[in-house]
Amino acid sequence: MITIEDFANVELKTGKVLEAQRVEKSNKLIVMKVDTGEERQIIAGIGKAYTPEELIGKSIVVVTNMQPAKLMGVESHGMLLAASDDEGNLSIISPEKQIKQGSKVK
Amino acid sequence: MITIEDFANVELKTGKVLEAQRVEKSNKLIVMKVDTGEERQIIAGIGKAYTPEELIGKSIVVVTNMQPAKLMGVESHGMLLAASDDEGNLSIISPEKQIKQGSKVK
Repeated sequence: MITIEDFANVELKTGKVLEAQRVEKSNKLIVMKVDTGEERQIIAGIGKAYTPEELIGKSIVVVTNMQPAKLMGVESHGMLLAASDDEGNLSIISPEKQIKQGSKVK
Repeated sequence: MITIEDFANVELKTGKVLEAQRVEKSNKLIVMKVDTGEERQIIAGIGKAYTPEELIGKSIVVVTNMQPAKLMGVESHGMLLAASDDEGNLSIISPEKQIKQGSKVK
């Protein structure tokens, strides 16, 4: 169990995908340029469920205060949220109504 | 900044709203019965942006391991995620594609 204070340490924001392409030599990782109020590069393992082309323009939700990580030599500054079930289905998470990028999610 | 381990302490799941009604004497709080793989009651302060009627049947994202809290005398067993901007707009967060309730979000 976690408290409200624990959860408040996680900074979640809406973002808009500006650019997306596959990470070289990976069939799963996609590197994106995302506007979360500021531009940032993030990497997500969603390349089996989404093509880079269909991600561009989509609204997403990003953990924006995650320590930067390097995957296959590429830096990620945040983590995209996606839902996945035990049958291998995967969906990104989006605001249901239009709301500007950089909006806080809580 | 948080680590992947910090974030892994937060359990997020997709849910489907089964029932919804306003909390008495509140113009903001809505109490919902939600299926997140198991049925739970949650309360969310989204009553200015959504009517109970339009919430029923919608897919949402819930923090499922939040300590239970009491608001206006009503128990909440989880926290619905919503995006809000500084102009008072608010939107719930939903899977972009159909995926079964109770799917993990990470």
